Amino acid sequence: MVIIMNPDATAAEIKSVIEVITAAGLEAKVMEGSQQKIVGVIGDKTKVADVAIDVMPGVEKSVAISKSFKLASREFHPQNSVVDVAGIKIGDGTPVVMAGPCAVESKEQLFEAADIVKAAGAQFLRGGAYKPRTSPYSFQGLEEEGLKYLAEARERTGLRVVTEVTTVEAIESVVKYADMLQVGARNMQNFGLLKEVGKCGKPVLLKRGLAATIDEWLNAAEYIMNAGNPDVVLCERGIRTYETYTRNTLDLSAVAAVKHLSHLPIIVDPSHGTGKWRMVKPMAFAAIAAGADGLMMEVHPNPAKALSDGPQSLTPENYQEVMAGIYKLSQFMKQENITSMDI
Amino acid sequence: MVIIMNPDATAAEIKSVIEVITAAGLEAKVMEGSQQKIVGVIGDKTKVADVAIDVMPGVEKSVAISKSFKLASREFHPQNSVVDVAGIKIGDGTPVVMAGPCAVESKEQLFEAADIVKAAGAQFLRGGAYKPRTSPYSFQGLEEEGLKYLAEARERTGLRVVTEVTTVEAIESVVKYADMLQVGARNMQNFGLLKEVGKCGKPVLLKRGLAATIDEWLNAAEYIMNAGNPDVVLCERGIRTYETYTRNTLDLSAVAAVKHLSHLPIIVDPSHGTGKWRMVKPMAFAAIAAGADGLMMEVHPNPAKALSDGPQSLTPENYQEVMAGIYKLSQFMKQENITSMDI
Amino acid sequence: MVIIMNPDATAAEIKSVIEVITAAGLEAKVMEGSQQKIVGVIGDKTKVADVAIDVMPGVEKSVAISKSFKLASREFHPQNSVVDVAGIKIGDGTPVVMAGPCAVESKEQLFEAADIVKAAGAQFLRGGAYKPRTSPYSFQGLEEEGLKYLAEARERTGLRVVTEVTTVEAIESVVKYADMLQVGARNMQNFGLLKEVGKCGKPVLLKRGLAATIDEWLNAAEYIMNAGNPDVVLCERGIRTYETYTRNTLDLSAVAAVKHLSHLPIIVDPSHGTGKWRMVKPMAFAAIAAGADGLMMEVHPNPAKALSDGPQSLTPENYQEVMAGIYKLSQFMKQENITSMDI
Amino acid sequence: MVIIMNPDATAAEIKSVIEVITAAGLEAKVMEGSQQKIVGVIGDKTKVADVAIDVMPGVEKSVAISKSFKLASREFHPQNSVVDVAGIKIGDGTPVVMAGPCAVESKEQLFEAADIVKAAGAQFLRGGAYKPRTSPYSFQGLEEEGLKYLAEARERTGLRVVTEVTTVEAIESVVKYADMLQVGARNMQNFGLLKEVGKCGKPVLLKRGLAATIDEWLNAAEYIMNAGNPDVVLCERGIRTYETYTRNTLDLSAVAAVKHLSHLPIIVDPSHGTGKWRMVKPMAFAAIAAGADGLMMEVHPNPAKALSDGPQSLTPENYQEVMAGIYKLSQFMKQENITSMDI
Repeated sequence: MVIIMNPDATAAEIKSVIEVITAAGLEAKVMEGSQQKIVGVIGDKTKVADVAIDVMPGVEKSVAISKSFKLASREFHPQNSVVDVAGIKIGDGTPVVMAGPCAVESKEQLFEAADIVKAAGAQFLRGGAYKPRTSPYSFQGLEEEGLKYLAEARERTGLRVVTEVTTVEAIESVVKYADMLQVGARNMQNFGLLKEVGKCGKPVLLKRGLAATIDEWLNAAEYIMNAGNPDVVLCERGIRTYETYTRNTLDLSAVAAVKHLSHLPIIVDPSHGTGKWRMVKPMAFAAIAAGADGLMMEVHPNPAKALSDGPQSLTPENYQEVMAGIYKLSQFMKQENITSMDI
Repeated sequence: MVIIMNPDATAAEIKSVIEVITAAGLEAKVMEGSQQKIVGVIGDKTKVADVAIDVMPGVEKSVAISKSFKLASREFHPQNSVVDVAGIKIGDGTPVVMAGPCAVESKEQLFEAADIVKAAGAQFLRGGAYKPRTSPYSFQGLEEEGLKYLAEARERTGLRVVTEVTTVEAIESVVKYADMLQVGARNMQNFGLLKEVGKCGKPVLLKRGLAATIDEWLNAAEYIMNAGNPDVVLCERGIRTYETYTRNTLDLSAVAAVKHLSHLPIIVDPSHGTGKWRMVKPMAFAAIAAGADGLMMEVHPNPAKALSDGPQSLTPENYQEVMAGIYKLSQFMKQENITSMDI
Repeated sequence: MVIIMNPDATAAEIKSVIEVITAAGLEAKVMEGSQQKIVGVIGDKTKVADVAIDVMPGVEKSVAISKSFKLASREFHPQNSVVDVAGIKIGDGTPVVMAGPCAVESKEQLFEAADIVKAAGAQFLRGGAYKPRTSPYSFQGLEEEGLKYLAEARERTGLRVVTEVTTVEAIESVVKYADMLQVGARNMQNFGLLKEVGKCGKPVLLKRGLAATIDEWLNAAEYIMNAGNPDVVLCERGIRTYETYTRNTLDLSAVAAVKHLSHLPIIVDPSHGTGKWRMVKPMAFAAIAAGADGLMMEVHPNPAKALSDGPQSLTPENYQEVMAGIYKLSQFMKQENITSMDI
Repeated sequence: MVIIMNPDATAAEIKSVIEVITAAGLEAKVMEGSQQKIVGVIGDKTKVADVAIDVMPGVEKSVAISKSFKLASREFHPQNSVVDVAGIKIGDGTPVVMAGPCAVESKEQLFEAADIVKAAGAQFLRGGAYKPRTSPYSFQGLEEEGLKYLAEARERTGLRVVTEVTTVEAIESVVKYADMLQVGARNMQNFGLLKEVGKCGKPVLLKRGLAATIDEWLNAAEYIMNAGNPDVVLCERGIRTYETYTRNTLDLSAVAAVKHLSHLPIIVDPSHGTGKWRMVKPMAFAAIAAGADGLMMEVHPNPAKALSDGPQSLTPENYQEVMAGIYKLSQFMKQENITSMDI
């Protein structure tokens, strides 16, 4: 932390600030220039977070300079982490694909989608059994029944299952049926849920919050890791901006940022990120080129009849085209040694 | 919903769209102009939400035109609602004030703050026993111990207690000790929590999410009301924008918007809304002038030693000045019949 | 500026950074802690702006800590500035009101509006002769003819005239007819225009850019002042956010921020700020309570027939109600010594 | 346009709305359902823009549904446009690269940069002679002297020159020395400048405004095209969001959106888009994969000494790596028929 003093701060005011810092077990260093006086604070960030300097007389503002996450940071773990989900490796250089309908609507719809997903070469089946919906009157998911269909679809296809968990109470059921638990954007700072999935014993897919900074997102991962679960995969799914043409603004630079700041794998969801099926293909290719470790996409046997999120679901034909393209791109980049990352 | 067709949409494509709408039990009306063709959809909004039209051939986009919340809407309940919290009325024309420290840190700190809050004329003591914090290493609250201190402070001062509940598991305890449950910004779309506080039997203060639209916020209220709890008070606490000078951007126009769209009372939190104690006073006065039903403010006996959110906490002196001002302003406006609202 | 080094930066890397800083005529001070190394830079901000440190080996990032505006800063001029516009004082404690139609459409419309504006007690007539419009096919203003009507309306009513100038070429004409030149939101960083209005010899009303930070806005004022014109009045008119219910999000906290950072007067435009006439009244009252030095409002004799921005224009009746309220509020606050500001 | 009436709008109110629409030469169609009444407006969008319906009694709101740009729209020109800049084709399927320093600082710096740019295979040299800077005290560019150096660098290397024009007065000079005029983000809605570059006879590179919607951006292109210049190339350079890790948020989905809505070529500037040189490479690859027609990048012989924007400039080594990668990627995608677009 660096504390900027007012240009006319008195010596007594600076002394008070130093005393508060020292009392918190931190070290203070003063830099005095002709136009400004700065107090640098050195020490354990976890103590700094709880000292309120800005309200002291003579203080203009304080500026945080160090990260508050540790286990998720690349300094802590310089090599890329590879997360193993029931034998499928995420982050080892080959992109993984998680595809399926937004919501599990019926056994038939799910099986049909799973067959399409499998045929085109994905590794994971996605599909929501618990759906967080803006309106209480929208379809809320089939709940445990949906989980059972997902598990049956796994038997049928060999795909791994990733599905969202929206409440602490549902963790037990989701763990029973799924291979990977998803924490959705709306729950990224549901800290009670994060702590509990940190103890669930299965890998977690952590979506970025609707308006979460990268720092907040990595701190959310830290909650899960700090509770004992190192197997966290991040998922960029678009952030909220003023632009209304797309449902969200897909922030592909987050892929590069996360690769620099963290060792955790990161995948991209162009379906939610854009809200338009037409944009899934270009954004999927772009995500792979940017260095993403995989993709999550919505595929629906018949999007126009989907109970939720139809406009962003690919038809089976579009989906196959996307799949073919991303594997070719990924292989070509590896073979030609075209690498996005300068960690 | 209104469906905009591509300029070159065929008659067959328009027919398909109409069929899907009709199949969902809705009525379709076509308007055909020289440059554009539009299909209007008439009927129950709750059905419309689950039909995916945008992916159909010939469709450019669909535009939602009706609100998805009902119980929270002014159409449903044309008069202003007044919420009674243990005898204190919110929304009856006299502003209420909820004040206290961000977090309950100790019995002494809370009692000292409660005495200050009471002396200046507030009706509610606020203070977090469960604190949602970005980093897992920051102070997370005293939990049930903090709730007990709050209840003791109520005995001591006669103030009502409002405090945040962050998990479903904690609802029982919070209901036992508090008069009003707060759902915080990060949990505004924690739908599991909303449903449960909807059954808790106590009034709920629902803060606006960090990047929530007014429509999403009123839908969150609808979750609580639809679960059986009509006693919801909204709280504007700033939204996330590109501006970094303030912690958030306090959206006072939300007060006027909510008054137009809904019958629910709305208060304003200028402490979180600005993140700077210097800005609490002008924003508190502005909120009252805009027609808010009350204020929530952070007051700390010694802000520079606060364990969280110090920079936005008022000192006792500032707080008293704010309190005096808002009551004078409010009385003057009532007496002179200066009214902000044209519902 | 403070430079955050990577935790593993070498001594040689730190030495290089210090050399670059010293070469730029600045002073470097190193703070070395167990987890981080920081280099503080002390000296003239105008030099600092042009040194690129972030790309040097071993550097994590640099953080700017001082303001880049001077003439506009409160440090430079501790007292509130009062800007005199043809005898009307802005910033002296009594709110001024600038009202009129969005665009000058005809002599009749303008005269009718001017009479309404005058009757209700405003000091300024506003109205656009040059209109910046998103589409080239929208009405672009009457240009010089519109300016003449404005000057005639001044003769008729005694109101001062404020009107927007959108190009350097038009400055000469606008100076001839108007008392105050407005630089609109879209031109806030049209630096060529800012420099020229800095030489025009008339006071300037500088609207905040659609997505401008307060720092950028005050730097825009600095351009005008640095070119020789100290008579700058700021105008908050809403910023662009994700919220779509309002046309913009009116940032009333900017009033308090500007009062703290600068000595310049600031007024508020609730018409553009909200885009809805229903919200003008509550936001006008809120702006006055927050400490604004005045208001700009759109009034149209017949809003439903306005050629631009009708939805945000008040009818004559609404306008009179707003006017009566703000003067009463302002007087009451002065008389009761209810002051928003803690500079 | 579609007009949503209040649920309790009277027949007389609906009649008034229809009259206003008809009076503007437009056609109105009424749809009446059990819960809502809608009036559809059919006709020329340019008339619709100037009718203010929202303020009429009984109206809840109006929703615009058609685009206001024409010449820039894909409906108007279904094939992709190819813009020829002194023999270099932009938009023909082979990506173009515009590279060079942010600002022209000296002949030596520019020549050195130009040689690097040329050697790695770019087609255009970029470099600012007129620099729009937030602070009046920052380096403002060498102006005409800088233009001369650019022209000399063209002689030396054969590269085409693209450079920013910030004022109408400078157009003549820039046209004399440059092959392509750039309109920068801050001037995207400087309509006076747009109209004049529309008459300048040279191709224009139009950067997206800091907080411009895609619709506003295409309308800005429409201003240039409507003034007689069809040779417009768009450039996505990041939008302003709440995220502070990157300087802006690069919106690569804008590439896909523009390709769908317009026939104009679009390139991407990952240097300004991210503000960090480390992120240029991954975002450059992603842009090409998303279907961009080219890239603009900042390259500086010695970024740590750059007078502006150093942190986002590539070193010569990074730049060559980026160049090699994008051409390989682009060729591979063409050869394998991996196409991002479903127009």
